[in-house]
Amino acid sequence: MDPKNFLSLDSLLTDRVRLAIMATLCAAEEPLDFASLLDNLELSKGNLSSHMRKLDDAGLVSIKKEFVGRKPKTTYCATEAGRAELKRYLDVLSNLIKETRQ
Amino acid sequence: MDPKNFLSLDSLLTDRVRLAIMATLCAAEEPLDFASLLDNLELSKGNLSSHMRKLDDAGLVSIKKEFVGRKPKTTYCATEAGRAELKRYLDVLSNLIKETRQ
Repeated sequence: MDPKNFLSLDSLLTDRVRLAIMATLCAAEEPLDFASLLDNLELSKGNLSSHMRKLDDAGLVSIKKEFVGRKPKTTYCATEAGRAELKRYLDVLSNLIKETRQ
Repeated sequence: MDPKNFLSLDSLLTDRVRLAIMATLCAAEEPLDFASLLDNLELSKGNLSSHMRKLDDAGLVSIKKEFVGRKPKTTYCATEAGRAELKRYLDVLSNLIKETRQ
């Protein structure tokens, strides 16, 4: 892993907001709703929405919409592909750290 | 290190191009010239210049201009503050990785 390979890596998670979202979703024991994610990450609604849409389009998160009583409720969780992508990106970061510290 | 703290971290190295530049400079045994950095990182000249200026303004790199024969030569190296900042940022990343993998 030289820095050039690190820079040329193609992953949605090179954006640190998306990295933080995926880390939060993968660490959660259950699906999280939009308000919990907002609260966990202190992002604006528009910013979080736009990142969630990209993650969803790429299949890294799944979105579940349901009604709780009469209220619509939307929850998010990491998909298997999302967990795999997070692992892959953390492995790349670990390698960069290891080799830079040598 | 929860993801919120990761997102609120204030460091020039949250930009991954600058992280790669600092990793390259800190790993080098001697100062690097502009062409070597370009070659190591495969960046455009304008992109590299603009990042080097920011790193220089923040005191993370030092720039040495000299003449080799009649030709001007500019070399770059990481300052002590730059090495410390790289270490700090890598520590933060390590913590995020460790806690996300738990």
